[in-house]
Amino acid sequence: VRIVKYLAYHHDGDEPTKELMFRAKQTLERAAAEGVRVAREEQRRFLEDFWERSDVIVEGAPLLQQAVRFNLFQLAQASARVEGYGIPAKGLTGRGYEGHYFWDAEIYTLPFLIHTAPALAKNLLRHRYRMLDKARQRAREVNERGALFPWRTINGDEASAYYAAGTAQYHINADIAYALVHYVRATNDSEFMAQCGAEILVETARLWAGLGVFSERKGGRFVINGVTGPDEYSALVDNNTFTNLMAQENLRQAARVVKWLQDTDAEAHAQLVEHTGLDDAELEMWEKAADLMYIPYDEELRLFLQDDGFLDQERWDFENTPPENYPLLLHYHPLVLYRHQVIKQADVVLATFLLGDAFSYEDKRRILDYYDPLTTSDSSLSECIQCIMAAEVGDDLRAAEEYFMDVVGIDLADAAGNVRDGIHVASAGGTWMALVNGFGGMRERDGVLWFRPRLPSRMKRLAFKVRYKECMLAVDITERGAEYALEEGDRMTIVHNGETMSVRRAHMLQRPLQ
Amino acid sequence: VRIVKYLAYHHDGDEPTKELMFRAKQTLERAAAEGVRVAREEQRRFLEDFWERSDVIVEGAPLLQQAVRFNLFQLAQASARVEGYGIPAKGLTGRGYEGHYFWDAEIYTLPFLIHTAPALAKNLLRHRYRMLDKARQRAREVNERGALFPWRTINGDEASAYYAAGTAQYHINADIAYALVHYVRATNDSEFMAQCGAEILVETARLWAGLGVFSERKGGRFVINGVTGPDEYSALVDNNTFTNLMAQENLRQAARVVKWLQDTDAEAHAQLVEHTGLDDAELEMWEKAADLMYIPYDEELRLFLQDDGFLDQERWDFENTPPENYPLLLHYHPLVLYRHQVIKQADVVLATFLLGDAFSYEDKRRILDYYDPLTTSDSSLSECIQCIMAAEVGDDLRAAEEYFMDVVGIDLADAAGNVRDGIHVASAGGTWMALVNGFGGMRERDGVLWFRPRLPSRMKRLAFKVRYKECMLAVDITERGAEYALEEGDRMTIVHNGETMSVRRAHMLQRPLQ
Repeated sequence: VRIVKYLAYHHDGDEPTKELMFRAKQTLERAAAEGVRVAREEQRRFLEDFWERSDVIVEGAPLLQQAVRFNLFQLAQASARVEGYGIPAKGLTGRGYEGHYFWDAEIYTLPFLIHTAPALAKNLLRHRYRMLDKARQRAREVNERGALFPWRTINGDEASAYYAAGTAQYHINADIAYALVHYVRATNDSEFMAQCGAEILVETARLWAGLGVFSERKGGRFVINGVTGPDEYSALVDNNTFTNLMAQENLRQAARVVKWLQDTDAEAHAQLVEHTGLDDAELEMWEKAADLMYIPYDEELRLFLQDDGFLDQERWDFENTPPENYPLLLHYHPLVLYRHQVIKQADVVLATFLLGDAFSYEDKRRILDYYDPLTTSDSSLSECIQCIMAAEVGDDLRAAEEYFMDVVGIDLADAAGNVRDGIHVASAGGTWMALVNGFGGMRERDGVLWFRPRLPSRMKRLAFKVRYKECMLAVDITERGAEYALEEGDRMTIVHNGETMSVRRAHMLQRPLQ
Repeated sequence: VRIVKYLAYHHDGDEPTKELMFRAKQTLERAAAEGVRVAREEQRRFLEDFWERSDVIVEGAPLLQQAVRFNLFQLAQASARVEGYGIPAKGLTGRGYEGHYFWDAEIYTLPFLIHTAPALAKNLLRHRYRMLDKARQRAREVNERGALFPWRTINGDEASAYYAAGTAQYHINADIAYALVHYVRATNDSEFMAQCGAEILVETARLWAGLGVFSERKGGRFVINGVTGPDEYSALVDNNTFTNLMAQENLRQAARVVKWLQDTDAEAHAQLVEHTGLDDAELEMWEKAADLMYIPYDEELRLFLQDDGFLDQERWDFENTPPENYPLLLHYHPLVLYRHQVIKQADVVLATFLLGDAFSYEDKRRILDYYDPLTTSDSSLSECIQCIMAAEVGDDLRAAEEYFMDVVGIDLADAAGNVRDGIHVASAGGTWMALVNGFGGMRERDGVLWFRPRLPSRMKRLAFKVRYKECMLAVDITERGAEYALEEGDRMTIVHNGETMSVRRAHMLQRPLQ
């Protein structure tokens, strides 16, 4: 006897159960009529399509290739059906974080989607747009203007009642704005920007404008006090560099997009003004706040500070911290962590990746040299970023490779010891970023993709595809050099190791590595 | 028919219910045998005795006299049966704060008891000694050395799970040490210091020694980072001036008392060393930490700062805060309060009262001038201290009197609107302090009581008694001057308006007011 069992589900927050039952029944009947072979074919096509546009080829270490694909497959699972929802920190694989999603979605998962499946990226950003009214309410709840996106949420309501290492992370606003601008630049989807994005930018910029203040004591600079940055081993600090730089970008992009809309789409601009009550004085204030944004810097160390008081804290005594005391948050009271120089996850270092142009090469190097030894990587959001920046400024790839091995294996090897609660979606996205932005050296600058490929010792070949504007670029890195070819589109300008090149369809370009 | 109903209770945490029932029955039988008249007489004697040693006479405003006595009566109620317990913030009058007690007991209620009923003060301090082992455990829980007394408690266990405006207020340790030293100085009870106090001082000093650190960036000064001071509208700050000064005093007193014990009572000293594992290097370190204690100060404003970052915060917009938005904590998110210069309760100002000798007269004046306008007095621990300092440094008594009217009436007039949750014991203690330390101008310096009496416009006479060492001093202030008389003891040195005087039994001294 052979039994074939069909199972169907439909979900929709607004429809009555009866309607969903009806739809599920219809789907079931169709599936039964078509047979299991058709369903299997559909699934195969879906996955073939996924691998065709998303695979990253790593030759020379079969286990590594498998681990990379395990991570990519997690991204496929987590993002395949995101219509109207976000991507939870654990995807659909476990109960960790109660199904909530965080800024990980925008900063760690979205880049992969933007460059391999932009329609999904758009779905996720549209979902943020849909919760804008709740974000406006939330801003009122915390006595601020504009909108404040929830630190953790399922349906747009703030699900965190804890501010120190939670809702005080206002940077969530700037992270969403950053991802939005990244998406639109990479897709030329100006329609989405006009219809949804501009309103998000306006309301998030407003939050920053109200949260910070021009400080007489800081020579008129715009300061943002009492926030928590990405590093959750510091809390309620003044002028977190990551937050201030991301807010600066948020303010600038908001002003830029409003002006662009004014110049190019009077109707959309009029609608935006109507929806938001925007006036021109606000734009001026945003630009002024961005221009005068205060970033703490120590002249003696020539170092960007994580926050105003960071250097005033005692250095953590790593030498006398036994290995079993990590992650520190499970063994030390938060107050002890807060009053030490000890970092849970890349913070200034993350800024040097996301906003690389705000830093000189020497700045980035000093930042990594100073903060990396203080970083415990107790968060799974950390090592992919440390890998990328170690690959950018390291003399060799040893440190980057070490970080990469941790990133790619966190769930397969259960290195964090908590995979029973679900896998780490952000680290899966981080795996892709470590390969593409780290070893591939990909950065976006002025609407152009820059590459600076480096081949790790464990790999004989690293190959991936990235979608950018109307093109799909295939990048193939071996010891002989890097090959660039267009799989879609006619012509694409790229920069390889500082050399601007035009890649044309059917004309593969090859250049040596550094 | 006349029905007389007798009711008895006994309480004891260790005895079985049966034993307590037996005792209650015995008490009831005795009471019934003696009759209600005897019980009433006992109660009358108890209260006569209380008023005899504790009354503060305020002539010229009958309602004010009544309000003062209402507060003193609350102190009688709250402290009469404290054997083995603390004094909860609401006494026994309501469920506010779940019956917990705080630092109020030591800083706001104990001064009254020390100077009117030292046996009760000793009971309370002995109770703190009994919880020293739990305080040691608590210090381990938060990864510190020595002992950390609970921020709120009933039985010695920390009952607060919240650190920002709660357990981060490490100053509780120094408050207890301060009260202990005050008690011993005022009573000459060196036996209690030897048997209980020294151990408390050692363990609290150890906490400070471990909590702070000598900072290279601050020129080797001893800094204490990441704490919350008395003002709960700031949280997790570096170098809260109140905390650092109180910690300095705690460290110094600990070193002094250990040396005194070593010199005067070898046995007690040996026992202390055995109980605490104390070594001489610790004493040196405490003295060094105290000598090098960092106190934030702004040279330009010539102002002691509430904490390192206080001036970097935006000034609260009092002008545009409607009256119905007070107390602010019920209308603004803590993060909003934290990033503004706005104060819930006297903080640096409290330090200028408790540790007056650390400040010049001009310092105190500038401190009151700067911080008082920023203080909302949203805590009932605030205005009594503002009253005292306004009386000390004000050109006239207008501000002090205004504060006093708020303090004395908080429960009678239900000014805070929450008397249904119980009365404010600390404010009752604060009433006594406002009268004695404020208008009476009483301070303790080098084992001598100093007075600088000023008569508020509403009063024709202010008279009170204070017990100090083996003496009981009666102070009687009218427009004609201040009269000092000894009711117990043979001779007492006091200072009136800077003039050192010797008061002898049966020789009343009179001096003009300023």
